[in-house]
Amino acid sequence: MKVKPLVGIIMGSDSDLPVMKEAARVLEDFGVPYEMTVVSAHRTPERMYEYAKSARERGIEVIIAGAGGAAHLPGMTASLTTLPVIGVPVKTRTLNGVDSLLSIVQMPRGVPVATVAINNAQNAALLALRILSIKYPEIAKKLEEYQGDMRRTVEEKAENLEKSGWKRYMTGMKG
Amino acid sequence: MKVKPLVGIIMGSDSDLPVMKEAARVLEDFGVPYEMTVVSAHRTPERMYEYAKSARERGIEVIIAGAGGAAHLPGMTASLTTLPVIGVPVKTRTLNGVDSLLSIVQMPRGVPVATVAINNAQNAALLALRILSIKYPEIAKKLEEYQGDMRRTVEEKAENLEKSGWKRYMTGMKG
Amino acid sequence: MKVKPLVGIIMGSDSDLPVMKEAARVLEDFGVPYEMTVVSAHRTPERMYEYAKSARERGIEVIIAGAGGAAHLPGMTASLTTLPVIGVPVKTRTLNGVDSLLSIVQMPRGVPVATVAINNAQNAALLALRILSIKYPEIAKKLEEYQGDMRRTVEEKAENLEKSGWKRYMTGMKG
Amino acid sequence: MKVKPLVGIIMGSDSDLPVMKEAARVLEDFGVPYEMTVVSAHRTPERMYEYAKSARERGIEVIIAGAGGAAHLPGMTASLTTLPVIGVPVKTRTLNGVDSLLSIVQMPRGVPVATVAINNAQNAALLALRILSIKYPEIAKKLEEYQGDMRRTVEEKAENLEKSGWKRYMTGMKG
Amino acid sequence: MKVKPLVGIIMGSDSDLPVMKEAARVLEDFGVPYEMTVVSAHRTPERMYEYAKSARERGIEVIIAGAGGAAHLPGMTASLTTLPVIGVPVKTRTLNGVDSLLSIVQMPRGVPVATVAINNAQNAALLALRILSIKYPEIAKKLEEYQGDMRRTVEEKAENLEKSGWKRYMTGMKG
Amino acid sequence: MKVKPLVGIIMGSDSDLPVMKEAARVLEDFGVPYEMTVVSAHRTPERMYEYAKSARERGIEVIIAGAGGAAHLPGMTASLTTLPVIGVPVKTRTLNGVDSLLSIVQMPRGVPVATVAINNAQNAALLALRILSIKYPEIAKKLEEYQGDMRRTVEEKAENLEKSGWKRYMTGMKG
Amino acid sequence: MKVKPLVGIIMGSDSDLPVMKEAARVLEDFGVPYEMTVVSAHRTPERMYEYAKSARERGIEVIIAGAGGAAHLPGMTASLTTLPVIGVPVKTRTLNGVDSLLSIVQMPRGVPVATVAINNAQNAALLALRILSIKYPEIAKKLEEYQGDMRRTVEEKAENLEKSGWKRYMTGMKG
Amino acid sequence: MKVKPLVGIIMGSDSDLPVMKEAARVLEDFGVPYEMTVVSAHRTPERMYEYAKSARERGIEVIIAGAGGAAHLPGMTASLTTLPVIGVPVKTRTLNGVDSLLSIVQMPRGVPVATVAINNAQNAALLALRILSIKYPEIAKKLEEYQGDMRRTVEEKAENLEKSGWKRYMTGMKG
Repeated sequence: MKVKPLVGIIMGSDSDLPVMKEAARVLEDFGVPYEMTVVSAHRTPERMYEYAKSARERGIEVIIAGAGGAAHLPGMTASLTTLPVIGVPVKTRTLNGVDSLLSIVQMPRGVPVATVAINNAQNAALLALRILSIKYPEIAKKLEEYQGDMRRTVEEKAENLEKSGWKRYMTGMKG
Repeated sequence: MKVKPLVGIIMGSDSDLPVMKEAARVLEDFGVPYEMTVVSAHRTPERMYEYAKSARERGIEVIIAGAGGAAHLPGMTASLTTLPVIGVPVKTRTLNGVDSLLSIVQMPRGVPVATVAINNAQNAALLALRILSIKYPEIAKKLEEYQGDMRRTVEEKAENLEKSGWKRYMTGMKG
Repeated sequence: MKVKPLVGIIMGSDSDLPVMKEAARVLEDFGVPYEMTVVSAHRTPERMYEYAKSARERGIEVIIAGAGGAAHLPGMTASLTTLPVIGVPVKTRTLNGVDSLLSIVQMPRGVPVATVAINNAQNAALLALRILSIKYPEIAKKLEEYQGDMRRTVEEKAENLEKSGWKRYMTGMKG
Repeated sequence: MKVKPLVGIIMGSDSDLPVMKEAARVLEDFGVPYEMTVVSAHRTPERMYEYAKSARERGIEVIIAGAGGAAHLPGMTASLTTLPVIGVPVKTRTLNGVDSLLSIVQMPRGVPVATVAINNAQNAALLALRILSIKYPEIAKKLEEYQGDMRRTVEEKAENLEKSGWKRYMTGMKG
Repeated sequence: MKVKPLVGIIMGSDSDLPVMKEAARVLEDFGVPYEMTVVSAHRTPERMYEYAKSARERGIEVIIAGAGGAAHLPGMTASLTTLPVIGVPVKTRTLNGVDSLLSIVQMPRGVPVATVAINNAQNAALLALRILSIKYPEIAKKLEEYQGDMRRTVEEKAENLEKSGWKRYMTGMKG
Repeated sequence: MKVKPLVGIIMGSDSDLPVMKEAARVLEDFGVPYEMTVVSAHRTPERMYEYAKSARERGIEVIIAGAGGAAHLPGMTASLTTLPVIGVPVKTRTLNGVDSLLSIVQMPRGVPVATVAINNAQNAALLALRILSIKYPEIAKKLEEYQGDMRRTVEEKAENLEKSGWKRYMTGMKG
Repeated sequence: MKVKPLVGIIMGSDSDLPVMKEAARVLEDFGVPYEMTVVSAHRTPERMYEYAKSARERGIEVIIAGAGGAAHLPGMTASLTTLPVIGVPVKTRTLNGVDSLLSIVQMPRGVPVATVAINNAQNAALLALRILSIKYPEIAKKLEEYQGDMRRTVEEKAENLEKSGWKRYMTGMKG
Repeated sequence: MKVKPLVGIIMGSDSDLPVMKEAARVLEDFGVPYEMTVVSAHRTPERMYEYAKSARERGIEVIIAGAGGAAHLPGMTASLTTLPVIGVPVKTRTLNGVDSLLSIVQMPRGVPVATVAINNAQNAALLALRILSIKYPEIAKKLEEYQGDMRRTVEEKAENLEKSGWKRYMTGMKG
């Protein structure tokens, strides 16, 4: 990762990595340089301050922050930078991520967090790409292609299902 | 609003205007040109298609979409453009906006909506400004000032409360 | 499936097929011709428009639409046709389908979706049959028989349980 | 209402009338004959049996049933007829209608209720009309017109808002 | 079960038996005669009428009714008898029994259901016994003994835990 | 209230009286002697112990306990007596009584509380009467009459609504 | 308040003061010195750092922190000190404080917040006093008296209600 | 455990031990003497009275109480002592501990329970240590070290992740 990263992916704990790695994967597919690390609002508050405070000057343009439970990382990061911060509510064992979602999305007037669906780090990356696309036309172009690919994948499945009927199609799904 | 708008504010019904006007107010305060109109996913689906499909080429860089209940406008708009789309879940009479929130934030993999707090159109605008700030340095600067202003306002209130004590402070709040 | 289908079964993703196939199974049992395909509101919005817009003239009389999460397919389909649209909220991994349910049922005034229980595609088909029964008396007759069968099945189980006692009955359930 | 009614509107209590009357109003606007009465699942169970059992032979083609709290009227009615039954969850003082919604929508396999949004009796009537439209082409035609009217109303509001700006538009809303 | 039953245990489906059998087990332990059968509000509404209507004259003094989802059996039974009816909300796969609980407990003024915890058929039986205890002093006596037994069991466990410490105690739990 | 009371009505705070008084009213209508007082689980735990421990020997046969929030009074009372205890979840300002409901209904195996709907003290009294009816035939008779009265009231309203139509009926409701 | 404060009361916004002042009132009643100010996690993150970091050395022994919505103040404060931090979830307009509660109570392993009921700042102060009571015996003594006072108040109300009956008692409540 | 315990850990059932043992483990790590036993509010109410009433004079300074469902142990214990009581809501099979959480946290004015996250007994112990730290400086010192350890652990993981990249890091997690 020698090129200067445009996106910073942070998470409250390395236990969030199985979820958050999907954001990295999408950015890699789009060829957008990123950095990824662990920053805990509660266990490393100073580290969070430094990370958020220095992000813009280090060249980061979008921050993706994932956290679970009383998820303070996205909101606190947003309060320490003026960059757009995307929050990923990580699913929790007890409350399925409803706690994470509300802790992230219900920010008070003045400090917004761009919240995506529970566990949906892939969409966090796609949102980061949409944001970058207003400045980097080649990303806009790639997003158009990505939407075309999604469309074609659905159309192929649809055609397949229509032709085979659901019984054979489902056999194929398992196969 | 003669200058070409950078932000498009749309809402599912004019009954959302008392909420969504706060987004407009913030953009006006920052001097960022915007357009604002009613686009109903359910009552004017074709209009929504045209709006979303043409937004980027018309120069719009961020879309803010507010809707309540089974709130499909932000997600459907996001599926019809590659621009960043910010969703504002509007509070509903029966379910307080929980329906709006879940209908907007729980988007499937592939199509993200940047969701803010229920009824918090002000934050939608501030998020739009953060997004624009990666391209327009003067907006980044204004956001820094805005954060400074917020900080100073709190500090003044804090000082005032510390000096007066809560009884006199509260009398002042009512006065 | 050479006869002209009366019911259109659509779903947002082929991952909904294990749920939605139950609707197909019921229609097959009743001998009612249907078509079944994948139509994604978010990944193939144009396809959804065409599907919904052309449904009535193609002879479809009821549409069953299943989707999960921010489930926009049933509501958007309903906004693009005047046919009755039945929505099946598909259970989600994080929120158990509460998000799907609210995204489907909480439609604004003007555009109704006939919502059934979470994951209950069987009931969606039975509802479609009840709807068709106002026009096709033979379907009404079959529904009466179906209700009789259900009644008899319960009565037999009841008799069995009363005779055997719960211990032997439960052994039989596992056997 | 001398003509034979096609739609039966029932409600668990006359306290539901302020909500359920909206269904009647829509049917009147469409010129579709209906009957309307109080049938309580819990206070008049025999009456409910008779009502539901005789509905089809009396010429009723769709039943709209509204109830609140432990709302058993729609489901029980559906179990006693093969007609399509539309359930309107009426908002409750304590749980805002979440109890009504779940009591109506979560029907077991075998007996479907077509559930609409909390308190949305207007949509119940529109759903009844969509159902009737598969048999009565003139209702299909009127529904098309209704959708056109809705579209035009939104378009006019949109145009008005775009022209006036939100400040003047809101003044107009209050005026 | 030759003696005339005092308690009637009914359930909406034989799939509720693994839960409801616990009620039977408790009544057997207390030596109180009971009857147990399947009565579906939705699949056998007439059977439910007959069951509830005849219960008191058949000598039944308390009815325990278990059901899941849109659980109408306890409330409808209560509306068809003046006996005390105890409702057991059966856990559901999608909503964990929240739907069952609200469908049973939120009865309107006039028709009460004595609701116990989700899946807690054991407590339904104990509640039935408390009810019977106002008439049958020997049941009151047995309930006193039962409470004593519960107390002693806890005290023994407590003593054991205090003596062994948690590490050895937990090893014992697994052993 | 010179006759020995059969029902004890207790509440956690006199602020629950506007809700709980409805239980008293019903018992008065049925001519069943009751006692009514304030017993706080948290503020008067000893008093609660004495009340519950002595209830049966004082001739009380059913206890109705109302409480809000972390509502421990019904469950703790049930743990200190073998009488049937009916819990009334009192609506709370913040959580609408969901906290009260769960604190009362979700009792562990061994100690049941007969829970009624949020704020529905009237039904608590009717449940107490159903319980007493297994011992006092005259109460059973009065309950039959009460159900008849309810039925007739609904039938009259139904007839009235059918005759007048909803517009005139609603005018009458306000008049 | 010249004596060195033992308790620090902070809140995210002066709009929380009507709730949080109740904590101050209780501490005043107990004669325990406190300080009270506004510290916003999101608008004054540096101020929060300084406040929390310096609290112990400034002689503060318990911190009470109130906040609403995505309420990060109590948890972040707890992460920046080793003092006990009590969190007061402030009721919110949209979600009634469920968001505040979950954001405060669902802290990850390592950083606890002592959470009290929504809006219950009085209990936050009482909890602070219980904490201080392990060090200051005179506070323990006052807490005993406080509990005695609570008990007597309930007993008086109980006696009054028992004597007057509910009708006269309620007239007295309004009078 | 010969030294006089400072912390009392109680739980409603030995089935809570797998959760509550984590509190014991933390106290052991800090070298703080504790006692641990089973005290059931519902099955051993007298035992609970004695335990709570005698705790302070026996030298206990903080009580940690864990319970699930209608969890009355923490609140009732708090009503019977003036010591700080920490409540641990234990996760339940049906409602995931939402019932436990609300039953514990929503205490009425006058009797506070210091509530921690669902199943988070570790944090209950850390909160007890923070409370003790106001009296025992060596515990304060150890808490500082503990926070330092947490910080370093995160920093090491962060460094590791940054160096290895997420693919190799995740392989390491499984290894």
